[in-house]
Amino acid sequence: MNEHQIFMQHALDEAKKAYALGEVPIGAVIVYKGDIIARAHNLRETTQSATTHAELMAIEQACEAIGSWRLEETTLYVTLEPCPMCAGAILQSRIPTVVYGARDIKAGCVDSLYRLLNDSRFNHECDVVEGVLVDACGSILTDFFRELRARKKEVKRLRKLLEQQNASD
Amino acid sequence: MNEHQIFMQHALDEAKKAYALGEVPIGAVIVYKGDIIARAHNLRETTQSATTHAELMAIEQACEAIGSWRLEETTLYVTLEPCPMCAGAILQSRIPTVVYGARDIKAGCVDSLYRLLNDSRFNHECDVVEGVLVDACGSILTDFFRELRARKKEVKRLRKLLEQQNASD
Repeated sequence: MNEHQIFMQHALDEAKKAYALGEVPIGAVIVYKGDIIARAHNLRETTQSATTHAELMAIEQACEAIGSWRLEETTLYVTLEPCPMCAGAILQSRIPTVVYGARDIKAGCVDSLYRLLNDSRFNHECDVVEGVLVDACGSILTDFFRELRARKKEVKRLRKLLEQQNASD
Repeated sequence: MNEHQIFMQHALDEAKKAYALGEVPIGAVIVYKGDIIARAHNLRETTQSATTHAELMAIEQACEAIGSWRLEETTLYVTLEPCPMCAGAILQSRIPTVVYGARDIKAGCVDSLYRLLNDSRFNHECDVVEGVLVDACGSILTDFFRELRARKKEVKRLRKLLEQQNASD
């Protein structure tokens, strides 16, 4: 594995922690001078806070680690293309390089719907690398949603069964 | 004053707290069923965290107050047009109505550079009201930057004076 793949694997390990909690499995790490200084995974349902996306929490941790809102000389690795909030937080923290795994065709704001990290009207632009460990980053999400649908279907089936039993009692 | 102006005045009071701290004076409040449930002001320099914009912190407070990442039936009041990060956080938290004071022609993502809150491709859109107490919301910012420039000029003048004294000693 090359350097990007090694660090993306750490982001994927974070995504797996989200999966285990029943959270949409997205993970992120931030690297500074070769070391991981922040790691986080999506915790929206657990915290019930709209801002607890993996990237945003990793950025907050990294600011604390470096002691500055400017995350110069860092690289953010995230398994899924960032949403507008997280792309905006990347601009705000001046992260120079962003590496992501799978595209988010419904809400991605790096390549899919907008290219917020490469708009010269903002006071910061990023180097972007996409598609690192793309299969693993994508399949953890498809597995999660497939399982979620199956679980919902099973709940529906059991509910119907209970109703039929109640009606026949 | 009408309801929007009354709540924007509270957001302006928050902006004044930022001003007093030497922070770019931007303030926000979130209203739920007629009550202010969150109030915050920009704290980027104080905290050295890139995510401590007024809107983002207000959204976090409101999620905690309501106990949900979905801020349905709320209205966000903010003195300046939101940046991409804060516009994204508004989408993530499903805030239905956003009221802002002055436009941010350099980084605003509600009307100026993008219209992120009114893009039907996202899974949420907002009602937007702009220009409430626009003069007060704008002038607190122009006053702040005028003062900042004057202070920088004075520092430069004093530095030059010191250098001249040192050279003549």
